Formats: sequence, structure tokens, C-alpha cells
Amino acid sequence: MDREKLIKDLTIETKTKIVLLVLDGLGGLPQEGKTPLEAAQTPHLDALAAQSVCGLTDPVFRGITPGSGPAHLALFGYEPTKYILGRGILEALGIGVEVSPNDLVARGNFATLKEGLIVDRRAGRIATEQNKQLCQLINHSLKKQKNITITLYPGREHRFVVKFSGHNLSDALSDADPQKEGKLPVLAKPLTTKAEPTANLVNSFVKEVTEILSHSQPANTILLRGFAKHPSLPTMEELYKLKPVAVAHYPMYKGLARLVGMDLAHPEEGIPDLLATVTQIFNDFNFFYVHVKKTDSYGEDGNYQAKKAVIEEVDAHLPQLLRLRPDVLVVTSDHSTPCLLKSHSWHPNPFLLHSATSQPDRVSSFSERECSQGYLGRFPAIYAMPLMLAHAGKLKKFGA
Amino acid sequence: MDREKLIKDLTIETKTKIVLLVLDGLGGLPQEGKTPLEAAQTPHLDALAAQSVCGLTDPVFRGITPGSGPAHLALFGYEPTKYILGRGILEALGIGVEVSPNDLVARGNFATLKEGLIVDRRAGRIATEQNKQLCQLINHSLKKQKNITITLYPGREHRFVVKFSGHNLSDALSDADPQKEGKLPVLAKPLTTKAEPTANLVNSFVKEVTEILSHSQPANTILLRGFAKHPSLPTMEELYKLKPVAVAHYPMYKGLARLVGMDLAHPEEGIPDLLATVTQIFNDFNFFYVHVKKTDSYGEDGNYQAKKAVIEEVDAHLPQLLRLRPDVLVVTSDHSTPCLLKSHSWHPNPFLLHSATSQPDRVSSFSERECSQGYLGRFPAIYAMPLMLAHAGKLKKFGA
Repeated sequence: MDREKLIKDLTIETKTKIVLLVLDGLGGLPQEGKTPLEAAQTPHLDALAAQSVCGLTDPVFRGITPGSGPAHLALFGYEPTKYILGRGILEALGIGVEVSPNDLVARGNFATLKEGLIVDRRAGRIATEQNKQLCQLINHSLKKQKNITITLYPGREHRFVVKFSGHNLSDALSDADPQKEGKLPVLAKPLTTKAEPTANLVNSFVKEVTEILSHSQPANTILLRGFAKHPSLPTMEELYKLKPVAVAHYPMYKGLARLVGMDLAHPEEGIPDLLATVTQIFNDFNFFYVHVKKTDSYGEDGNYQAKKAVIEEVDAHLPQLLRLRPDVLVVTSDHSTPCLLKSHSWHPNPFLLHSATSQPDRVSSFSERECSQGYLGRFPAIYAMPLMLAHAGKLKKFGA
Repeated sequence: MDREKLIKDLTIETKTKIVLLVLDGLGGLPQEGKTPLEAAQTPHLDALAAQSVCGLTDPVFRGITPGSGPAHLALFGYEPTKYILGRGILEALGIGVEVSPNDLVARGNFATLKEGLIVDRRAGRIATEQNKQLCQLINHSLKKQKNITITLYPGREHRFVVKFSGHNLSDALSDADPQKEGKLPVLAKPLTTKAEPTANLVNSFVKEVTEILSHSQPANTILLRGFAKHPSLPTMEELYKLKPVAVAHYPMYKGLARLVGMDLAHPEEGIPDLLATVTQIFNDFNFFYVHVKKTDSYGEDGNYQAKKAVIEEVDAHLPQLLRLRPDVLVVTSDHSTPCLLKSHSWHPNPFLLHSATSQPDRVSSFSERECSQGYLGRFPAIYAMPLMLAHAGKLKKFGA
């Protein structure tokens, strides 16, 4: 019997509540001896760690740097090497695009083409308003095709999602994106012979859009990446008998949450409102995935001080969550984003679990180094969910 | 090559001796800052821990609360999610019932039916002697059937085992037990269509027994649960070339031991005799599974002081085992049973391994918290067996 089936068989519905607070990209590397988490003043997290059971998690396995998709799937208890997600699907779901099983979606950028080269992959980060107008223009201008509908959905700044609705579409395509500036545009290449018609469709579409945009500046072409079809994942309700909700600001994470069947809350901008939203909806759900993005963003920017400041801001507002007295509170990250690397990394995540049945260990503050001494040891993130369920009294005994 | 086959291929027969001392349900949660194991005065275990390599084990994986079956299988090196055991089979083997591949067994309770409801699931815990008489009465009174023999075997108090011998019997049946008092009796339901004839057989049997017992008080009906057929497990001799023996008081653990091919010793009641039995038979075997039940029983009762006292009693008699100078001595538990929860739990087990080749770590006393700092780290209990075999010099090199 595999892990997923075992957990599914053992879960029971209860009223107990679980809060999973994810500080995206929290883990880091030391600069001048301390990681941002170690340097940050975090009295509430430290006090909580002292009363919690702690450890370190590996999102996939030691050495693997995960994207947001696999890292979150693991935290939600889904084997990230079994459920492979295209980034396009996450982006699409995140901005509320309905995706059905026959659809193919991709992430798009408006970009600048000059003398045959992609000179700006983000078209100077055009205003979101201009993005909307361009998507409208393209949606109206595209030639109608038999059995195929193509629609652009604007995102923020230069980003959009494109959806191809038709039959026999394949997502086995390479990106139509040179990834670097100063390069020639590249075609989407079929990765299987079955994907050839789809590659032709996509490449004709990019060509047509570039013609439509020939008088637009600086957004005069598009780049597409992350071709994906709708994956079929069991929902968290099916697997764990939970009523889950995501409290997140960013499309990617909302999309991921919808993929596993979570409802979406709609927090206003900023960390105080993010956490206040949990209070407002606390009676309506029993699993709360709360996502703080900026720890990751500043890690990606290499901005040590700003990352530290976000951690301190979360800490200052933590009492809002503590006052709710959730049966289980976990604070962790999906993956590490060291400022030194300015990117996601393979380093493990600090992990803290507080409940009435969490045996406190010797960890007295919340940091990567302290958590390495915790009672939970170092473990694959996929076990975070059975641990949360167990501590919430939602798992029956296995066998007699 | 899977773990089981690898170990099987690498084991060699040697005269070295392994003692596995299992304090059932040993792990716990702190009350007033200390777990029973931390609070207990255990000079011998502490001295042993200081010379041993320590760690924490998860019986199945983090978050899973195991029954005695899966927890022990893991300790014996059998994948507990591969070998699924019905409780009936363990109970049957434990009281010495011969079970052959065509047989179906179940655990039974004598119970009290009043005005159509099960008012006492244990029939007032009738005396074992009365139980024996009732089983005899039923065995004699049951109508003979073609191709089916049904036999009751008395256990302690209100418990018995029933064996159905016939052909094409299925164990895909739900319990014929409402699980709670004040409820209507329930029928065994077939979980597959193939199991329908067996369900009918079982339900007719319960009806017939209830008629036979119509003048008996308070035991006037029976409840059946844990329907199971004989699983086929490789023996410890086949897998590890060991000559194993179980030194245990309770039927469940004897049954489990027989399932993996162990011989049974017959200790008198009490911990001193349990340990003395190992000395008596020390020349006859090379693997000794020694099972102390009461740590679990008192955990289930929520009796902190009594659990602590049992641990101290085991510690006081430990020198008996130490004097034998086994090549490998492991002290651990199968699962945790915190007094706070009054039940098995998912918390990890303290684990101590002493041998000439065990590298001592910084652990200076035997407790959950201390073991979390041990050199073995936190690991799945299924690796206890390869560790014991290795330290006993019973595992060849893998590959050249």
C-alpha cells in the first residue's frame, strides 16, 4: 500500500484546525555569520519554537532545488515526482482562467524584438493597463480557426496566459523563449512526434501575434513557456477529508491551491491583512494555507536586509495567528532562497510544529541551525502533512 | 533490488547473538516537563546508553500511529505497508490455534444483548472459566455443515477466537461489531462480491450462536471483528538465517512471533522471570525477542506513575541480560503510548544499540529527548534489523 493510499484510508473528519504558514524561500545562507532568519529579531517565533517540535525538511530530496510547484505539492502531501505540473497551468489557475482537460495553456511575456533579436524579455515591464489593451487587441485580431480557440488573459505588467482550446493538443513542447536577451527568437519544439501539430499551431500563433503587434512599441512580440495541460490531482478533501483554504496574494500560489481543491480567500495587500484574513474566515475551514511571498522575492533580489525585515514583520503580526489557538500551527518554507544565490536552492527548510501533542525538543529559537537539532530530524517535506494530520487527531491507527 | 531481497542475499549464519528488548509503548509525552522514561530512575539503561549508539525510530513513517502488528513487523525488518495483518490472525496464533491457508479467523467477544441493543460489549468481562464452558457448549451445539467446520477457542475473560475451516472463504468482511455500546448489532458486510457467501456464513453463525446462548447471562451474544486469513510471510530464518525465539507473556506478541517463524519460550508471569528465561535458553537460539507489555498497558490506562515504575523494574533486572554479554543488545519500543493520549501514538521510539562496534555518541541517558541527539538520527524502524545484523557480524559486503 503506498503512502498516499495509506493516509487516505486513515484520515477522519474532525473539527480540529490546522494552520500552515509558509514563508516562501525562508531558508538562507549566512552572510557575516548569520542567515536572514538568524539575524532577524523574532521573539514570537523563538518563543513558539521553544514550545514546538522542530526539524528540517527537504522538498524533494537532498540536493534538488524545487520550483514553487513541486515544493508546495510536497508540503501538501503530494509526491512531487509523481505529479508533474507545468508552470503555465499554475499561472492560469492563479489568475482565474478556467482550464478544462482538453485545453493547453502557457505563460506568456510581452517582449521587444529589434533587428531580429529579443532585446528585452519583458518589454520594459509595460503597465498592466497596456497589457490588458494588447491582449484585447490580439484576441480580436486573431484569425478564426476551425476547432481551435486561442485566448490571451492579461496578468501583471508584461505577463499573460494563453489558452489553446481544441482537441488532441499536447503539452510536450519546449519553450518558445530564448531565456536570455540578445538572442534570436526560438520556436516551440515538439518533444514527441504526437506533439508536432501542436508545435506548428503554437509557432503559427506566435508569428501571427508578432504581425498584429508590428506597430506596437516596446511590446512587439511574445515569448511562451511552460506549456501545460490540466493535471488531475486528487483534492485535499478526497485525500484528507479537510476543508482547506488558501490565504495568498500571488496568482501562482492561488493556482496551486485550486489545483488541490482549496478554496481561495481574498486578502488585501500586506502581511497584516494576510494574517487578519485567517481570523475572519477561521470558522469556515479547517485547513489554512497562508502564503507570504516577499521572503522569496527579496531572496531572489539578493536583498538581505529586506528579507530580514519581512521575517520581522511576520513575527510582529504572528500573535494574530496565535490568538486563534489552532490545534496545529506549522511555520516553514516551501524551499530556501539564499540571498547569496539570488535563486531557489536545495537547502532544507526550517520547520516548526506546535500542538498539544508536540513534544518540545531542545530548540530554543527559530532558525535553520536550531531546527537541525530538533526532535523531528531532517525529513522529506511530504511527511509534513501526515504529521499535521496526526497532531490534529485526524489520523486513525494503522493496523491492529 | 528491494531492501528485503538485499538483506536476504547478504546475511550469513554466525553464532553471534542478538537480544531485542521491546518495552511496548515506551515512548511518551512529558507531564510536568518529563516523560515517564525521563522521570524513571534507570541507572543501568543510562549507563548502557552512554556506551551505545542511539537514535529515534518511526514505526511506519512520520505521523502514522501503528497497531502492534505493523509496529512489530517493522522492528523485525518486514515492510509494514506490504504485509498487512488482520488482528484475528495474530490473536489466533497467540493462543496456539493452528491456522492453515484455507482457514478464516476472527477475534470474538462474548457480549450482552438487551432489548435488541448491545449493552455490554464484554459481557461484564466474564471469568475465563465461564468463557471456556461457553465455547465448549457452542462447539458442541452448532449444527454440522457440509464442507465447513467452525470452532471457537477461548481466550482470557470475554475474548475468543473463531476459526472457519472450508474453501473459498474470504476475509474481505467488515466487523460484525457495533464498536460502541447502546447500539444495534451489526452484520458482517462483504467488501467484495466474492466475499458475499462468507458474509452470509458468518452472519448465520452469529445468529445460531445467539440462539444457543439465549438462556445464558450476561453472555448472550457474540461480536466478531478482524476477519483474517493466514498471511504468508517469509520467516526470519529464511530472510536472516537466524534461529529466533520470542520471550513474551501476551498472546498477541507470541502470535506475531510465530508468524515470522520464531519459536516460543514460556516465561512465568512478571518481569524477573521474563528476563531469567533468556538466560535459561541462551544457548539454544541466536535471536531473542523479549517483550515487556506493561509499559504499553499503563500508557493506555494513562497511569504515569505505574508506567514509570515498570520502566524502573525493567532497569533493575537489566543486569541479568547484560551478564549474558549478547553480541548485540537493542532496547527500544514498537510504538509510543503517551499517558496523555491513553493510546498508541505516532511519536518516535527511543532506540539504543549496544555492541562492540557501536560507536558511542553524546547520549548519556536513555530517553526520547536524549536519543534525538544520537548518532543514528531518526530513522524508519525497518532499518533496526539490518543494523542489528550488521553489528552482529551477520551481513556481508554489498557489491565488490
